[in-house]
Amino acid sequence: MKKKNYSKDSIALHRKHNGKIEIKLKTPIRTKDDLSTVYSPGVSGPCLEIKKNPKKYRDLVSAGKTVAVISDGSAVLGLGNLGALAAMPVMEGKSALFKRFAGIDSIPIVLDTQDTEEIIQTIKNIAPSFGGINLEDFSAPRCFEIEERLKAELDIPVFHDDQHGTAIVVLAGLINALKIVNKKKGSIKVVVNGVGAAGVAITKLLHLYGVKNITLVDSQGIVCNERTGLNATKKKLIEREAQQNICGSLLDALHNADVFVGVSVADILGKNEINNMNSDPIIFALANPSPEIDPIFAKKLGVKILATGRSDYPNQINNVLVFPGIFKGVFEGNKKQITDAMKLRAAKALADMVKKPTVNKIIPGPFEKGIADSIANAVKNSK
Amino acid sequence: MKKKNYSKDSIALHRKHNGKIEIKLKTPIRTKDDLSTVYSPGVSGPCLEIKKNPKKYRDLVSAGKTVAVISDGSAVLGLGNLGALAAMPVMEGKSALFKRFAGIDSIPIVLDTQDTEEIIQTIKNIAPSFGGINLEDFSAPRCFEIEERLKAELDIPVFHDDQHGTAIVVLAGLINALKIVNKKKGSIKVVVNGVGAAGVAITKLLHLYGVKNITLVDSQGIVCNERTGLNATKKKLIEREAQQNICGSLLDALHNADVFVGVSVADILGKNEINNMNSDPIIFALANPSPEIDPIFAKKLGVKILATGRSDYPNQINNVLVFPGIFKGVFEGNKKQITDAMKLRAAKALADMVKKPTVNKIIPGPFEKGIADSIANAVKNSK
Repeated sequence: MKKKNYSKDSIALHRKHNGKIEIKLKTPIRTKDDLSTVYSPGVSGPCLEIKKNPKKYRDLVSAGKTVAVISDGSAVLGLGNLGALAAMPVMEGKSALFKRFAGIDSIPIVLDTQDTEEIIQTIKNIAPSFGGINLEDFSAPRCFEIEERLKAELDIPVFHDDQHGTAIVVLAGLINALKIVNKKKGSIKVVVNGVGAAGVAITKLLHLYGVKNITLVDSQGIVCNERTGLNATKKKLIEREAQQNICGSLLDALHNADVFVGVSVADILGKNEINNMNSDPIIFALANPSPEIDPIFAKKLGVKILATGRSDYPNQINNVLVFPGIFKGVFEGNKKQITDAMKLRAAKALADMVKKPTVNKIIPGPFEKGIADSIANAVKNSK
Repeated sequence: MKKKNYSKDSIALHRKHNGKIEIKLKTPIRTKDDLSTVYSPGVSGPCLEIKKNPKKYRDLVSAGKTVAVISDGSAVLGLGNLGALAAMPVMEGKSALFKRFAGIDSIPIVLDTQDTEEIIQTIKNIAPSFGGINLEDFSAPRCFEIEERLKAELDIPVFHDDQHGTAIVVLAGLINALKIVNKKKGSIKVVVNGVGAAGVAITKLLHLYGVKNITLVDSQGIVCNERTGLNATKKKLIEREAQQNICGSLLDALHNADVFVGVSVADILGKNEINNMNSDPIIFALANPSPEIDPIFAKKLGVKILATGRSDYPNQINNVLVFPGIFKGVFEGNKKQITDAMKLRAAKALADMVKKPTVNKIIPGPFEKGIADSIANAVKNSK
């Protein structure tokens, strides 16, 4: 079978339709009366209702339950800093997925600035147009400050999907993988390789879940307290969530490790690395499009549980499993924040979607029924 | 027949549907292949195409031909400064009309700032997300600076509908009204009462069209060079477009006038005012919801040609006749600016939609076929 060229197909599809999303009216405009109700003079009614009681906003306008999918184009997929315009196909894609998988309306916005303060101010200025903010493809470490500030300064949910979406799916996969190999969260050793947006959030969420032994590795080796020049994010992580006393290489880090989570670059796991791990290693090789270890090579080395970001191998770690349900849940539950408790419950709900986990199925596929609803229920019943 | 309560109906309609617009996918997502084409990994194709050649943006993403309908809520309908949230029903209504009357996608955005510089910067920062900007319900005189600056600093069309949409429809109506009374644009006297966003734009466009004698009146009387404390906009208008040497009241201004254009307040035209005008007076009484003169009273005074902003009397001056076609035209013609020439041609095209103008039909109704296309053609064939 000829391998599909998704990139070429995608260009053709985008050209054919001029993009992927459009506006649709919820109510027809056929008569003068319709016009007078949808627009002037009738529209003054809902305007004044909202003026009187701003809480009615969420029910009287579409905007109240619409997500802004916002990027500055600084870290587009694995392609790097492409800028605003070239980020738009990803944002429109995300909007399409929000609608397809949870019926959630969302609007793609790309920003013509990569200045942190200006980004924060711009998003705050347009925030009344939305019921929630999904940050996308902002580079680390700026993404952490942008998200934290917006969470503190806005009264609508803010979610950086590259961080938390990824972390939630990884945790869900790990929960099921641990069942298969019969290991316990409190006694496993996890190595997280790559300390960008995803790596940081994965570390925090695994720690929160109860994983006690996490070692962080970046391109310089193990992130440890002897190293100079660590940024504030990494310093905090080894103070709070990860071990800080052992230094060394990735190979060193993997000694007696049970789980490897790679959010880094292709082909950095070789035979020595795998052999240095404990028996029944669990490998999340999430670098895209080429994982940290070739799946066929991994199998030859005896790796049984391998998850990647790819749809052509088992166990795809795909954020689409999470973000639509998260926002569905916050809208249904009228939540102002997406909390750690919600993330944990969402991960457990997602793991529970797989009734009998196997090495080739630690996570459900994106088209399985009920995923978004299950996550939405977890979120709306959470604090 | 019981008079309809559009305001109440509108609240019920907004509550029922949670607003008026939603997102629709242009292409289905049914299979893993669909997912890989619409989103990762295929979406990197159009991203890189746009990075290579930003001109492809308009054809590869929906955003390239999407209008932002933006307001700061400072002058919502005739209701005043309601702020961001309460302005949203109008913006969503506008988006619904864009789609209904020209098939144009647009996104409603309300801003949490009323600071001119911050508004300009915010709109510039989000501008890559759109193919055009429709400004809406910004109060005067800030609206003039905001529009001028954005036109100068952005390379996509910017249109303040409250100014130019209104001006174009008024000019179209005037063109046809003059045919009926057999008067010439170069020899008529026009009084424009109200020098806000609409009054300023109407004055400029009528002057550009060839009306030579225009008198401006605001709440203090005739705008003339003896008056102190005039703002810069009014000063410029009496230097360039309107007469500046005669001072006095609205009654004085109407002496020998042929046309009254009111964009002001209810019931300021009485018997004396009408009688002071020339024979066959043409009255645009556009204050909403109550016009400058009650239509029944005007008829008693012998006024034959009266246009209002209302749908329940003949000759409704309704911006929906114009803005959808304007943006359709700039997108079809790939225009970077909406020029004076386009506005003039759009007005003539709209006037031409009425084959045989009568006192009760100087302007087409919003549901007549072909209006947006006719205006779009005028715009795209214009410089």
